[in-house]
Amino acid sequence: MPLLRVALGQTNPRVGDMTANAVGIVAMARDARGQGADLIAFPEMSLTGYPIEDLALRPEFLTRAHHHLEALAQTLATEGIGSTPVIVGFPSGPLHDRARHVEHAIAHNSAAILAEGRIIGIYNKHHLPNYSVFDEYRVFRSADGVTILRVNNCDVALAICEDIWHDHGPVEAIAAEKPGLVLVINGSPFERDKDDVRVPLVARRAEQTRAHVAYVNLVGGQDDLVFDGDSFVTGPGGLVIARAPKFVEHLLVVDLELPDARVRAGQHGETVTVIDVPTSEREHPPLAAPTADETMTDAREAVWNALVLGLRDYVTKNGFTGVVLGLSGGIDSAVCASLAVDALGPQRVTGVSLPSRFSSDHSRDDAADLAARLGVEYRVEPIADGVATLEGQLKLEGVAAENLQARIRGVILMGISNSSGQLVLTTGNKSEIAVGYSTIYGDSVGGFAPIKDVPKMLVWELARWRNDEARKHGATPPIPENSIAKPPSAELRPGQVDQDSLPDYEVLDAILSMYVTDRSSRDEIVATGFERGEVDRIIDLVDRAEWKRRQGAIGPKISEMSFGRDRRLPITYRRDRAE
Amino acid sequence: MPLLRVALGQTNPRVGDMTANAVGIVAMARDARGQGADLIAFPEMSLTGYPIEDLALRPEFLTRAHHHLEALAQTLATEGIGSTPVIVGFPSGPLHDRARHVEHAIAHNSAAILAEGRIIGIYNKHHLPNYSVFDEYRVFRSADGVTILRVNNCDVALAICEDIWHDHGPVEAIAAEKPGLVLVINGSPFERDKDDVRVPLVARRAEQTRAHVAYVNLVGGQDDLVFDGDSFVTGPGGLVIARAPKFVEHLLVVDLELPDARVRAGQHGETVTVIDVPTSEREHPPLAAPTADETMTDAREAVWNALVLGLRDYVTKNGFTGVVLGLSGGIDSAVCASLAVDALGPQRVTGVSLPSRFSSDHSRDDAADLAARLGVEYRVEPIADGVATLEGQLKLEGVAAENLQARIRGVILMGISNSSGQLVLTTGNKSEIAVGYSTIYGDSVGGFAPIKDVPKMLVWELARWRNDEARKHGATPPIPENSIAKPPSAELRPGQVDQDSLPDYEVLDAILSMYVTDRSSRDEIVATGFERGEVDRIIDLVDRAEWKRRQGAIGPKISEMSFGRDRRLPITYRRDRAE
Repeated sequence: MPLLRVALGQTNPRVGDMTANAVGIVAMARDARGQGADLIAFPEMSLTGYPIEDLALRPEFLTRAHHHLEALAQTLATEGIGSTPVIVGFPSGPLHDRARHVEHAIAHNSAAILAEGRIIGIYNKHHLPNYSVFDEYRVFRSADGVTILRVNNCDVALAICEDIWHDHGPVEAIAAEKPGLVLVINGSPFERDKDDVRVPLVARRAEQTRAHVAYVNLVGGQDDLVFDGDSFVTGPGGLVIARAPKFVEHLLVVDLELPDARVRAGQHGETVTVIDVPTSEREHPPLAAPTADETMTDAREAVWNALVLGLRDYVTKNGFTGVVLGLSGGIDSAVCASLAVDALGPQRVTGVSLPSRFSSDHSRDDAADLAARLGVEYRVEPIADGVATLEGQLKLEGVAAENLQARIRGVILMGISNSSGQLVLTTGNKSEIAVGYSTIYGDSVGGFAPIKDVPKMLVWELARWRNDEARKHGATPPIPENSIAKPPSAELRPGQVDQDSLPDYEVLDAILSMYVTDRSSRDEIVATGFERGEVDRIIDLVDRAEWKRRQGAIGPKISEMSFGRDRRLPITYRRDRAE
Repeated sequence: MPLLRVALGQTNPRVGDMTANAVGIVAMARDARGQGADLIAFPEMSLTGYPIEDLALRPEFLTRAHHHLEALAQTLATEGIGSTPVIVGFPSGPLHDRARHVEHAIAHNSAAILAEGRIIGIYNKHHLPNYSVFDEYRVFRSADGVTILRVNNCDVALAICEDIWHDHGPVEAIAAEKPGLVLVINGSPFERDKDDVRVPLVARRAEQTRAHVAYVNLVGGQDDLVFDGDSFVTGPGGLVIARAPKFVEHLLVVDLELPDARVRAGQHGETVTVIDVPTSEREHPPLAAPTADETMTDAREAVWNALVLGLRDYVTKNGFTGVVLGLSGGIDSAVCASLAVDALGPQRVTGVSLPSRFSSDHSRDDAADLAARLGVEYRVEPIADGVATLEGQLKLEGVAAENLQARIRGVILMGISNSSGQLVLTTGNKSEIAVGYSTIYGDSVGGFAPIKDVPKMLVWELARWRNDEARKHGATPPIPENSIAKPPSAELRPGQVDQDSLPDYEVLDAILSMYVTDRSSRDEIVATGFERGEVDRIIDLVDRAEWKRRQGAIGPKISEMSFGRDRRLPITYRRDRAE
């Protein structure tokens, strides 16, 4: 049985920056070649970053990608990696095509095989995800056909991400060809508990094709998505034999004993392209035994790390010097500040206390305590003068006056941001954003919302977990216990608490999960035991807050249903009053 | 040759409000029956409103739609319209289907045939638009098969909107069957000059099928879309023989002499369903001669009316009492205020002058003059005190101080809005929004942006046109000549004009049209004669402003490429510096 040493390069590209992404690919390929790899694979769209959205409709972008790919092939050859095939994801389009106002997809989502200084083959994705956050029918064309790469007398079938999520299509066709290895390149974003889905899925494909499966995934934050990496390889029985860590760039190298090449093109219905790579003698320096264990089996740890990576990459990929956020003494801003420090270090984080006449002493104390624990720069900017000036001028009262306080805070944070160049973080959680419990242009100001997809109950869980972790490692727990323990309040009037206007968060989060995530109906929610009036009120709040959400900052998706591209609903929408 | 009296009901439904939409359908059907109609057709999704977006993924919504449709059929029968087939657009889904977290489309985009108190047939859309603002692959399943309605010995083939935009598919299959009439129900939004596309397209389909074609379209604003109506009927040669007005609800009734029914199901490849409607004796009171002229052949008039309707429907369908906006004395706010008055009347519009220490006298005079011309409530709220308080506290200077002025204006407008319940209009034009020439949470505050899709050069054109119209009708031109003539300025520092930071708007708009609308590359734009440095700078500004646009208000789409769902690009995006 021939041995194939496969290297999976779990990279973190930046969308559009093909020069830098290619440099990263070359560096990792050099490392892989140094370890004696026979085949090196990078994730879906690793050349351009992912998702590229409507950039795929720009002929110029596609032409650039092609040129970069050719240059990359040459660089790899120059670097002495020319005889080792390297798989790279990229958008392949018609070159020099120039249609005015391109409306329909012109590109494929493709995997290029680079060897000998050139592109020796291209596989195009069959199944295009067009649900959740994905719009691939909009920007890509689907394809068919099987592509087999023959290297070292092993047959390697290619597939791209969504291709393996369907029983029919390429998986069936690949199974019929009996390759030794199925290599799947992916751009699969993190979701809580998604690893519970991916590994069994890949195991099923391994059994179905009776082949090893190598699964290489992107890592890194891109706008509202966090790619978690977690690349892995299974045997033909579906057992995981090697696994990369999550949330970091990593090169996973593994030796596979594969059957002799046996695919004969044209035997079955599907078009099969076999690409033969002339192999040279290779040294195989001994490999360390691969780790097959999953990193971060604790769901809270995985979520925390996803949020940290999403925040870090948004800040660094967009070139911000650091972040600034309001510290209220409450749990949301405490968690956001802790995430920011874990992402960027304390030197790049500024916390601002923005007390009003309604702010309690404990709020100021807890905010100062948090800043001290985190070691971040801390400013106090009272809002009393600004509020008094405008409240007096406009004669505001009630909710209008409450909102004014939040808006003066927003103005102050944006003033600091405009002076310092720091990105403002907005600290709203998913439960608040769902029901619109926030002041637009007030506490919602900011370019990034670290806990946008974290329901309030999970915010508390994460805070407790993070403090426990600190204790475990002998460090200071970052979050003041008081911020975790006290009843949540917006402190916009004396003695106000969230539960004046909202049900207990336990109830709220349960109803929101059913209505927002599961798309359950009112009757279905009521049938699980909640009071009809309460369910009605919550649903109404969610529906009416759509306009606010549309103007909200993006934030990392960690659930199967986040607010944003994941959930597209009209603002102008009137549920029948009769029902 | 049998005569068929066809009624097209150009309705303005509200998304989700099926009870009210059904009431509107019944009222118009009664009118049509009173005029002796043999067949009555309403637009795509006329029962639910359109587009319903992810509501189509909610099983409960689909079940409700089905119940409303059944009730509508019964009501029509009760009203004595049971023997006249009525075509109504709706989303048809599996009933009582209950999949947790429905990710994939379960519904069809359908046309129901209602007669005799029940649903006697359903046609499902074949071609699903999945470009521009449309995501129909996400939420609908495509279908095949031809549906022929046989009424009064005439064969009427059904089609839905996108179905007729493709040469292949249903149009071919329909042509093979030789029906007398092709009835197309549509949800086709307004775009400048789109009528130049629709009529020739339908004419081509008439020639291809050798049938009359009846085209019935929605009217009204729904979030960022404006449906313009403009329903019409062509003869088999493609000549327009009847045409409804644009931008208003309308019932278009027309007599057609059609060939005897001749479709024989199953003759050709496609599945053909023929639905026979038992016809009763009908009276045919004489019809007024139909008008075949297009309304609003002036493109500026059509755009103005689209903007008025989009604004009016956003305000009224969302239940706002009125609107409030800042009046700067400049052209953008003057045009927005004039649109608001045309949409809602002067009683529902409040203009607020928000002078700073840099505001020129002419700004205040022009704002007051505008308010007087329009007859709207006018307030003056100086920002000096608010600005001084916060500028002093934060020690802001430069751009941060300029932005502060805009943000205090935003806070004041939102304070007024929160007190009065009026919707804030934000007055930015497309050119500004493209390059990010605005202060986020400052002049961008507001729930609706009336001229979001109107480039600056067109803003001027519209202003001149609107004033000319007033003069033509002996009314006061609403917009002060000075607001049109003076050089545009944000007035955030002494003597500032837009052209300090931006090229002339003529140049800017030309470059933006190529980059944004046509998706042209930098080289292509430079090749048309613009200076490379200028092109680079504009493209860079557009790319970098994506995060601001994501948090911007929606506004009516009037071009083939608006900002919003029409153009989906990453925020985190780095063009290669080397290129």
